[in-house]
Amino acid sequence: MTIRTVVWNEFAHERENPVVRDIYPDGIHAVIAAALGREADIDVSTATLDEPEHGLSQARLDATDVLLWWGHKSHGDVSDAVVERVADRVHQGMGLIVLHSGHFAKVFKRLMGTPCSLRWREAGERERLWAVNRAHPIVQGVGPSIELPNAEMYGEPFLVPEPLETVFISWFEGGEVFRSGLTYQRGAGRIFYFRPGHETYPIYHNPEIQTVLRNAVRWAYNPVAWPDVAEAPNVPVAEAPETIEAKGASLHQAGEAGFR
Amino acid sequence: MTIRTVVWNEFAHERENPVVRDIYPDGIHAVIAAALGREADIDVSTATLDEPEHGLSQARLDATDVLLWWGHKSHGDVSDAVVERVADRVHQGMGLIVLHSGHFAKVFKRLMGTPCSLRWREAGERERLWAVNRAHPIVQGVGPSIELPNAEMYGEPFLVPEPLETVFISWFEGGEVFRSGLTYQRGAGRIFYFRPGHETYPIYHNPEIQTVLRNAVRWAYNPVAWPDVAEAPNVPVAEAPETIEAKGASLHQAGEAGFR
Amino acid sequence: MTIRTVVWNEFAHERENPVVRDIYPDGIHAVIAAALGREADIDVSTATLDEPEHGLSQARLDATDVLLWWGHKSHGDVSDAVVERVADRVHQGMGLIVLHSGHFAKVFKRLMGTPCSLRWREAGERERLWAVNRAHPIVQGVGPSIELPNAEMYGEPFLVPEPLETVFISWFEGGEVFRSGLTYQRGAGRIFYFRPGHETYPIYHNPEIQTVLRNAVRWAYNPVAWPDVAEAPNVPVAEAPETIEAKGASLHQAGEAGFR
Amino acid sequence: MTIRTVVWNEFAHERENPVVRDIYPDGIHAVIAAALGREADIDVSTATLDEPEHGLSQARLDATDVLLWWGHKSHGDVSDAVVERVADRVHQGMGLIVLHSGHFAKVFKRLMGTPCSLRWREAGERERLWAVNRAHPIVQGVGPSIELPNAEMYGEPFLVPEPLETVFISWFEGGEVFRSGLTYQRGAGRIFYFRPGHETYPIYHNPEIQTVLRNAVRWAYNPVAWPDVAEAPNVPVAEAPETIEAKGASLHQAGEAGFR
Repeated sequence: MTIRTVVWNEFAHERENPVVRDIYPDGIHAVIAAALGREADIDVSTATLDEPEHGLSQARLDATDVLLWWGHKSHGDVSDAVVERVADRVHQGMGLIVLHSGHFAKVFKRLMGTPCSLRWREAGERERLWAVNRAHPIVQGVGPSIELPNAEMYGEPFLVPEPLETVFISWFEGGEVFRSGLTYQRGAGRIFYFRPGHETYPIYHNPEIQTVLRNAVRWAYNPVAWPDVAEAPNVPVAEAPETIEAKGASLHQAGEAGFR
Repeated sequence: MTIRTVVWNEFAHERENPVVRDIYPDGIHAVIAAALGREADIDVSTATLDEPEHGLSQARLDATDVLLWWGHKSHGDVSDAVVERVADRVHQGMGLIVLHSGHFAKVFKRLMGTPCSLRWREAGERERLWAVNRAHPIVQGVGPSIELPNAEMYGEPFLVPEPLETVFISWFEGGEVFRSGLTYQRGAGRIFYFRPGHETYPIYHNPEIQTVLRNAVRWAYNPVAWPDVAEAPNVPVAEAPETIEAKGASLHQAGEAGFR
Repeated sequence: MTIRTVVWNEFAHERENPVVRDIYPDGIHAVIAAALGREADIDVSTATLDEPEHGLSQARLDATDVLLWWGHKSHGDVSDAVVERVADRVHQGMGLIVLHSGHFAKVFKRLMGTPCSLRWREAGERERLWAVNRAHPIVQGVGPSIELPNAEMYGEPFLVPEPLETVFISWFEGGEVFRSGLTYQRGAGRIFYFRPGHETYPIYHNPEIQTVLRNAVRWAYNPVAWPDVAEAPNVPVAEAPETIEAKGASLHQAGEAGFR
Repeated sequence: MTIRTVVWNEFAHERENPVVRDIYPDGIHAVIAAALGREADIDVSTATLDEPEHGLSQARLDATDVLLWWGHKSHGDVSDAVVERVADRVHQGMGLIVLHSGHFAKVFKRLMGTPCSLRWREAGERERLWAVNRAHPIVQGVGPSIELPNAEMYGEPFLVPEPLETVFISWFEGGEVFRSGLTYQRGAGRIFYFRPGHETYPIYHNPEIQTVLRNAVRWAYNPVAWPDVAEAPNVPVAEAPETIEAKGASLHQAGEAGFR
């Protein structure tokens, strides 16, 4: 069985900035998709902001097991309807991998419920990601740490909820630290935030980063379908697991739907 | 120092339904406020849906330490602007206590990032809340369990994130269970979800329920002010904790704000 | 690749009590092993208390991926050396599934760090396990709840640490609740506590319970080997990731081992 | 009400090593106790390894609200009986603050259930502790980070369970990171692990470190007494919250204690 994977990218910097274009001539999504698509169990395609519905129609999302998200300067251009649609699919079981500046993507903030703010500096400094949870499936195949010679700095405090698991913590040359790999569950969906990926450095060409992304796709894949996860069904008295009789006053008539 | 506490209520059922009016002639908020206001360290006031800005102006929220939220049939009438304002204040450090049917309140879904769905039945059945974390400040002064002779049933699965702490779990006469007391942190703010409180039963008149609410107000109170919690400040190279020199290409000009 | 699985049982009640013997003539371990062994990916064997080293020699444990543990009246007869050996292997990556009265097994208390105490009643009452986290791999293939017509009651508070995930919560006929399925990570090893299994009822013959056990074995299996997980290696100055020079006073001579 | 606080120190290096003696002529415990004792709400005393029962008799522990623990070279000399006694008191509600090399103290390993291993280097390098959870009571009164000019390095992976909260993360000059402030609950007791404190540097003289210690004492203080936390009481049929009749076979006779 293959994991149907979509790599989403706003695809803006690569078309506007020559430095970025040199590194990612076909876009960041193309490089990530190529890295994932080498694996027999991953069936990968891409989607970008300027496609109709940003390439994320309901039918497309319904046929997606894991979505990767790269966005930066165009967060505000992502339609709220698509954001809700993606969040709904995560709740139903789709995995989501949020990359780098995606910390401020609408859909990440929507799923975290927090500001997702941080400190930052663009100085091409050295970053070293330490695998804090070395037994985690996401870090298999990489060493104790991953070193990136040039990276944008993200510094704590990172305003996200306490994670399910802290997988990576980054050290920066300039003196800061950052929780760079964090896992969450929201509804039936698994979420992995992965920090590296600034567009002016060739980070997604790094073999260890690619290994982490492949691991993350497999970890985020949950072969569970829960289409009505957001429903709040009434359990009538006659269908209660234990025999009971209704007592006291009621607000609802029998068969009435709940308020929402 | 007193904890500036606001009890918010949509205040609809009490004006429309004679059963509810008999139990809460001045509204659910009035009974809760009276229970909290007996304490010297809690300074309590109330707010309702039909006040201007639902009684939750920016100035009012800025002067609020802990907000309690009761809503049910009018979730959809709460303005999105007020929801964002409340969420922002939670991020900045305001405590939030979400009551009963508030599981579907816009602001709770906003802060959880999940559907917050559940199963339900209105049969006046018996509920028993077990204090799972008996050492938690929220359960002090109540026994091993709280018994409610008549309650609406809420059943698992409850679609919220794994909590920081599970404080109460409910047993229902009809055969279901529910995580009835859960804690979270979002930004600097502490959140407590507390299940009991159906409007057709006198639950907020129960002395043990009132004790839990008072404990929860004190627990949720965090004397921290973080007004710019959502900001993502740049840390210029010259202000890096360690001396570094900028290397490689940059996307941003010096002094430019980040994208969001 | 198969998951090398060992089912451990103290194997006492089945030999001493006719009621238990009727249900488990060859021991609880035999029934569990048969249920697991039907699967092509699980390679199962058993071990019992009165074997040399309780059947858990270092060589045997080193060749074990997942260990299931059933104990009750003989907790005190398990040698401390074997307990440490099992705990060490969990830290190195072996999965551990602790069953029912194993909550008081030395190795479970050793790995939790808490009393693992609870309330109990042996009245053959009805139990219903609700799948709180319906998207979890451990609950796939079973319905929203599992009903056991006769069970020993375990009641909260259950003195374990906040779990990584709450998977099942039980409802009991007599009015109590219990967190019946909990996950943990200790070192590189995954741990699942699963409540059902009282020896006077045919609980491990139940097909849904058997499905949960098979799921749990697969979930607990972590193909990671970390034999030196407990070591605290020195990182000499010359091997620091960044070039540094030693400053200030030192307690240790170069090459000296740390204290423990 | 004052918080009855005991600072425990093995008190070995200070008597054997002139560098350490110069920094802590009366012992590390004396400096910490002086820092805590300036506060009106903290009533502080000290205890050391070579006192009878290491200064931690049952009576002393029963009258202790919060215990701080500094040990390094003498972990192996701490009696197992005292370790169990301290762990039992934590379960009953006593707070515990474990300092620096206490990561390998018997009582910390006992309460964590993990190896508590890490990487280390004694090079007097610079450490910067970032307050990851800036809203936490333990970090109030200190800046975004605490800088220590000379520190022993501790590096990840740190083999402890996922914490309740990650409070501090350290950056080291030599290139490593470490989760330097972590909270846990074990039984009714709150535990804070705090990394800084190497004996060859004057770290406990640092005013910000002292502020953290004072905050931690107040956070760890839980005015709850649960002396029988480890008991597993039987709930007889006649005292079940719901009326039930015993069904099926039983292993235990009425009134019998459970196995352990």
